[in-house]
Amino acid sequence: MRREIGVAVIGTGFMGKAHALAYRAVPNAFPNSLTPRLVAVADVSETGARQAAEQFGFDRATSDWRSLLDDRDVQVVSITTPCSLHREMALAAIAAGKHVHCEKPIAPSASDAHEMMKAAESANVVTQVGYNYIKNPILKLAREMIASGELGEITSFRGIHAEDYMADPEIPYSWRVDPQNGAGALAEIGNHIVGMSRFLLGPVTHVNAQLETVNKSRPVSPGSPERREVKVDDIARLMVTFDRGCSGSIEANWTATGRKMQLEFEIYGTKGALCFSQERFNELRYFNAGGDPRTSGFARIEAGPAHPPYENFTVAGGHQLGFNDLKTIEMAEFIAAIEHGTSNFPDFREAWEIQRVVDAAIRSSAEAQRVSL
Amino acid sequence: MRREIGVAVIGTGFMGKAHALAYRAVPNAFPNSLTPRLVAVADVSETGARQAAEQFGFDRATSDWRSLLDDRDVQVVSITTPCSLHREMALAAIAAGKHVHCEKPIAPSASDAHEMMKAAESANVVTQVGYNYIKNPILKLAREMIASGELGEITSFRGIHAEDYMADPEIPYSWRVDPQNGAGALAEIGNHIVGMSRFLLGPVTHVNAQLETVNKSRPVSPGSPERREVKVDDIARLMVTFDRGCSGSIEANWTATGRKMQLEFEIYGTKGALCFSQERFNELRYFNAGGDPRTSGFARIEAGPAHPPYENFTVAGGHQLGFNDLKTIEMAEFIAAIEHGTSNFPDFREAWEIQRVVDAAIRSSAEAQRVSL
Amino acid sequence: MRREIGVAVIGTGFMGKAHALAYRAVPNAFPNSLTPRLVAVADVSETGARQAAEQFGFDRATSDWRSLLDDRDVQVVSITTPCSLHREMALAAIAAGKHVHCEKPIAPSASDAHEMMKAAESANVVTQVGYNYIKNPILKLAREMIASGELGEITSFRGIHAEDYMADPEIPYSWRVDPQNGAGALAEIGNHIVGMSRFLLGPVTHVNAQLETVNKSRPVSPGSPERREVKVDDIARLMVTFDRGCSGSIEANWTATGRKMQLEFEIYGTKGALCFSQERFNELRYFNAGGDPRTSGFARIEAGPAHPPYENFTVAGGHQLGFNDLKTIEMAEFIAAIEHGTSNFPDFREAWEIQRVVDAAIRSSAEAQRVSL
Amino acid sequence: MRREIGVAVIGTGFMGKAHALAYRAVPNAFPNSLTPRLVAVADVSETGARQAAEQFGFDRATSDWRSLLDDRDVQVVSITTPCSLHREMALAAIAAGKHVHCEKPIAPSASDAHEMMKAAESANVVTQVGYNYIKNPILKLAREMIASGELGEITSFRGIHAEDYMADPEIPYSWRVDPQNGAGALAEIGNHIVGMSRFLLGPVTHVNAQLETVNKSRPVSPGSPERREVKVDDIARLMVTFDRGCSGSIEANWTATGRKMQLEFEIYGTKGALCFSQERFNELRYFNAGGDPRTSGFARIEAGPAHPPYENFTVAGGHQLGFNDLKTIEMAEFIAAIEHGTSNFPDFREAWEIQRVVDAAIRSSAEAQRVSL
Repeated sequence: MRREIGVAVIGTGFMGKAHALAYRAVPNAFPNSLTPRLVAVADVSETGARQAAEQFGFDRATSDWRSLLDDRDVQVVSITTPCSLHREMALAAIAAGKHVHCEKPIAPSASDAHEMMKAAESANVVTQVGYNYIKNPILKLAREMIASGELGEITSFRGIHAEDYMADPEIPYSWRVDPQNGAGALAEIGNHIVGMSRFLLGPVTHVNAQLETVNKSRPVSPGSPERREVKVDDIARLMVTFDRGCSGSIEANWTATGRKMQLEFEIYGTKGALCFSQERFNELRYFNAGGDPRTSGFARIEAGPAHPPYENFTVAGGHQLGFNDLKTIEMAEFIAAIEHGTSNFPDFREAWEIQRVVDAAIRSSAEAQRVSL
Repeated sequence: MRREIGVAVIGTGFMGKAHALAYRAVPNAFPNSLTPRLVAVADVSETGARQAAEQFGFDRATSDWRSLLDDRDVQVVSITTPCSLHREMALAAIAAGKHVHCEKPIAPSASDAHEMMKAAESANVVTQVGYNYIKNPILKLAREMIASGELGEITSFRGIHAEDYMADPEIPYSWRVDPQNGAGALAEIGNHIVGMSRFLLGPVTHVNAQLETVNKSRPVSPGSPERREVKVDDIARLMVTFDRGCSGSIEANWTATGRKMQLEFEIYGTKGALCFSQERFNELRYFNAGGDPRTSGFARIEAGPAHPPYENFTVAGGHQLGFNDLKTIEMAEFIAAIEHGTSNFPDFREAWEIQRVVDAAIRSSAEAQRVSL
Repeated sequence: MRREIGVAVIGTGFMGKAHALAYRAVPNAFPNSLTPRLVAVADVSETGARQAAEQFGFDRATSDWRSLLDDRDVQVVSITTPCSLHREMALAAIAAGKHVHCEKPIAPSASDAHEMMKAAESANVVTQVGYNYIKNPILKLAREMIASGELGEITSFRGIHAEDYMADPEIPYSWRVDPQNGAGALAEIGNHIVGMSRFLLGPVTHVNAQLETVNKSRPVSPGSPERREVKVDDIARLMVTFDRGCSGSIEANWTATGRKMQLEFEIYGTKGALCFSQERFNELRYFNAGGDPRTSGFARIEAGPAHPPYENFTVAGGHQLGFNDLKTIEMAEFIAAIEHGTSNFPDFREAWEIQRVVDAAIRSSAEAQRVSL
Repeated sequence: MRREIGVAVIGTGFMGKAHALAYRAVPNAFPNSLTPRLVAVADVSETGARQAAEQFGFDRATSDWRSLLDDRDVQVVSITTPCSLHREMALAAIAAGKHVHCEKPIAPSASDAHEMMKAAESANVVTQVGYNYIKNPILKLAREMIASGELGEITSFRGIHAEDYMADPEIPYSWRVDPQNGAGALAEIGNHIVGMSRFLLGPVTHVNAQLETVNKSRPVSPGSPERREVKVDDIARLMVTFDRGCSGSIEANWTATGRKMQLEFEIYGTKGALCFSQERFNELRYFNAGGDPRTSGFARIEAGPAHPPYENFTVAGGHQLGFNDLKTIEMAEFIAAIEHGTSNFPDFREAWEIQRVVDAAIRSSAEAQRVSL
């Protein structure tokens, strides 16, 4: 009989569904894992909660997320609500002794994130934050190559996360651009590339940033002539220094017309280089500086069985993982950390560190000077 | 309460697991679907069957696939065993009134496939064959563009399915190269591109083919000095004519060093052209001949919400589907056809048609002449 | 003082100009070369000849190409007239002891080409035919890699030359589709990829081909309601066997909407693979089968100083050659062969061999059977 | 008879040769142009001058560049010497009434460049500086599309010029890293992308930059144990604001392992986007935001006859220009400006403007603050 672990999910939107799907998919791809049992789902709308329960097979539905705290069948709580609610929910769940998965960004500010992290570490619960792109097998390879020295000493990083979903100035004002939700392109998508840079290269020590609001006002509602001022960034540009000694640039942009997922990086080292784009996330391009100049070039590595845990999804190379598979890996690693008491990444501490970079960038831009972390 | 449909799967290998995963994933992505209930799994090894049952959540496990036939909880049977067993199993399941999903190739020969198709049509059961690559939302777009005339009159087709998993001459002799299993590069992977050409352009009427065995013998077991002659094709090249009037070429090759999934086509029409590669299967390249020559070029369309049923998996563009998602679409469409009594594609009739092209190519090559279908 | 060699060019169209430019450019890029002196240019139009003489710096202009034969200042004659005139002009030039460069295709048929080749070899003059794409430094690398065994035993070839300049059915009937000019997609552009396959892999021994006329008639003049039947191929598909033992496919297509220069090949060997496209002709993609599966992939080699004679044009990598540079290399090698008495490639013998493949394909298609060369 | 204009070239290195070649090629590609007559070449080495004269066809050779000033046959002087010599030579040539082409960077500092610019404007001579990459026909298209509003309002710019020719820390100390020559990655290659950004988007008003020396010392000679400190940048990162209102980033890096010519930009506007890389400089990728979401994507525009002056080099699309062709366009436009008295771009004023951005970046980095121009 498979051993189970009880899971509750708060929120039933894009990410609520993604979590439910991912928990369900864990035992399929990771047969040795504890099996997440979908115990309960909470949503402000009771109807929404019930529909989600039926669709995804939760045992119970509730409109009162606090009721999950006393539920002894629940060992894990997934928080997928708007960012402004994360702190309260996470602290309550931690206090109730639950392991907590929280969507990104963890909080509107680093100080909130710090409080959440401290609470979790004191309570000794396992935490995770939804920076799922780094769960990609091909990025685990990238990290290993850097860590093992295959690229030599790293000399430069260039990172981008650009999309176009906020390019249209007629998209109404909403939580997406409300500073209370930790809004802005940098906070919402830029933290992915900030996190990816940390995953690959380690801590950031200095930030020199300029944030810019391209669409300076938005209608208060669709088509309304009344407009509200937007105070968060549409574009953020950072020049960063890493603790390991190299420097780099990071750009976040949610007004990049035509781009759907330009989450990219290029890393240059003394012995090689890596280039990656989430637009083709089953590929990694690698230049080995030690090769024969006559036949050298950037090689397009395709994800395959040589890149764990690709093989958990399909045994043959070239078949490719999808976004939902990355989410499954994320949940499987979270569950494994709970079961085995091992460290987990990215946890609340890591999310706090990412948020510190975001906060430093906002401050750098406001003060027009370089900032140390 | 969700309405269920009982499913049994025969075989627990690569495809057996893929079927189980896909059935499980159907209600997540397609909430209005009947929910496949994993009633039973059969495998020659009782242990294998039990392990699969536990991993994927089947109610029952058996080493006797015939026991599924009388199981009133089972409405659907998925056959994922070696090709040589398909006929017997499918005919028995059809006779028992089950709807049948059978992996590709459906049978070693078109005559076997014909018998299976006739049985299914007489029994009025729904059938499906696992040509899952065409379930790709971006290929549904391609088909629509051709059908709607957006490309004008089609003038040329070029199709390839090349991989390298049989390139090494020291891979031992196995069922993969045993003609009884409908073996050979053309039968095993070439039928994907044959099927894709039919999906996009319709029936093939003439074939002129040359099949070639690159690795003319293989060890009888790993490292053995004893070798056995290989009689099936490593490479097949076809020149084909379509009923709609245009012609094209098709290549199957499982010795294409470096290629993991070069399942590609290019289609040229009087008003436009399309290029696709499974290596980047969330993309389709489209040339619109009506554009301004100054700014025209092949556009890289990225799969997104404009391409159903992409949105069933993730609401935002640029996130990408994986191979297992294609399999989920396949099963969802199969289940929907059963529920609504609608036609299904690719069914046994389509599989027979694909096999007819394969058989015609084998005959053309053997007789060194063009063959009409 | 630079040593000179006198050159005459017959024809002042696209290729006439290209020849003049290339001869002029030779000493710049190849300082040790004889300097081609542009002695005379001939054109049916005396005005055309004069204009060309002035533009490109020929000493003399004439409307009588035969006058070049007695010109003692002329050692080299370049023939860039329509194909149907090549034979007469080349034979006359050879008889006059001139070295001869002739544009491709050399003749409408292999028998004409054979006569020209025999005459040249008897007269011991140096010849060259304008298959200039193979003068690309990156293709010299490809050839070396194959010859040296870096790709192991070659198992498969796939070659294409597709463009769209004849896609429009309203392009009037002209010499381009007149069989007397050796017309048709295969003869006009397909011979490039036939020649490239021979350059890389050696002689072709068998051909199984199907030729097709997509646009079955064309207006006799622009906009005319009167149409004339087209008898030459718009698309040609060949299945070929090479003398070295491997086989392959070749396609020529001048109705491939959207394609401007899809001159491509893929070559698979037991130790590696190469992919090339003239669309990006400063690149070659190379898969080395001996690499670590974890980091292997097709490497994009960029043309640079490691690939002679790239460095004759620019000393730094990444700067790229253009089409006219390939033409300059072609002329430089021709001049060098004349000066040093070395063999030259592709000469009239090679052009005859290419034409034999073209003729064999036409015959194979007409007779609906495989043909041996 | 073709009308001529007398040219002298100072310097016979990489760029000296490129100039000579380009002047020679002008009348071939631009038949209506004045014909540059290569009157004289100067080099510190008289032997070098003589060899160059012979190779490229200059009438005279000299080791005294000042002798060119009184040469009445010389109307144009091309300066291709090290940067530290530009000012003296250019001022002398201007004083002698010559039109002056000077290689980039025009001077080690903006103040020197300003003096040169003022002198040229007072003397009313035509000037040009060798920012040749922007002579690319496909970039003229990019500029037109921006200027005409086809991209809407520009919201963001991302520019890079990265190569790897200084990545190896054992490359000896030389003029390349000597601040007196206006050295550093930004000054040497970064000015290309700075100039390209200005060509496309207009003036830069603010710069916030960080410059970094990766290889902090270099051997005084090849293999020497003695090392000399390097004070110029290996990597420069700029955040810039354009006068038109949008902002962007610029990176220069000559230690980017594996990169030979990553001169790239991406430009996002409210109606579309453009992406370009010099690695494939016959292509421009264009996203038109007004298209059908179902079939929209970045289109790969291939340079062709629709993009003047491509057709001056080859009449058919898909043939591609090379680096030397860009240089030919550069010289042809320079000569045309002299003949017709029209304005020329990029002239000394433009070079001064580019140098001002470079100087501002150096100052911004040193002072750790944003700088206004």
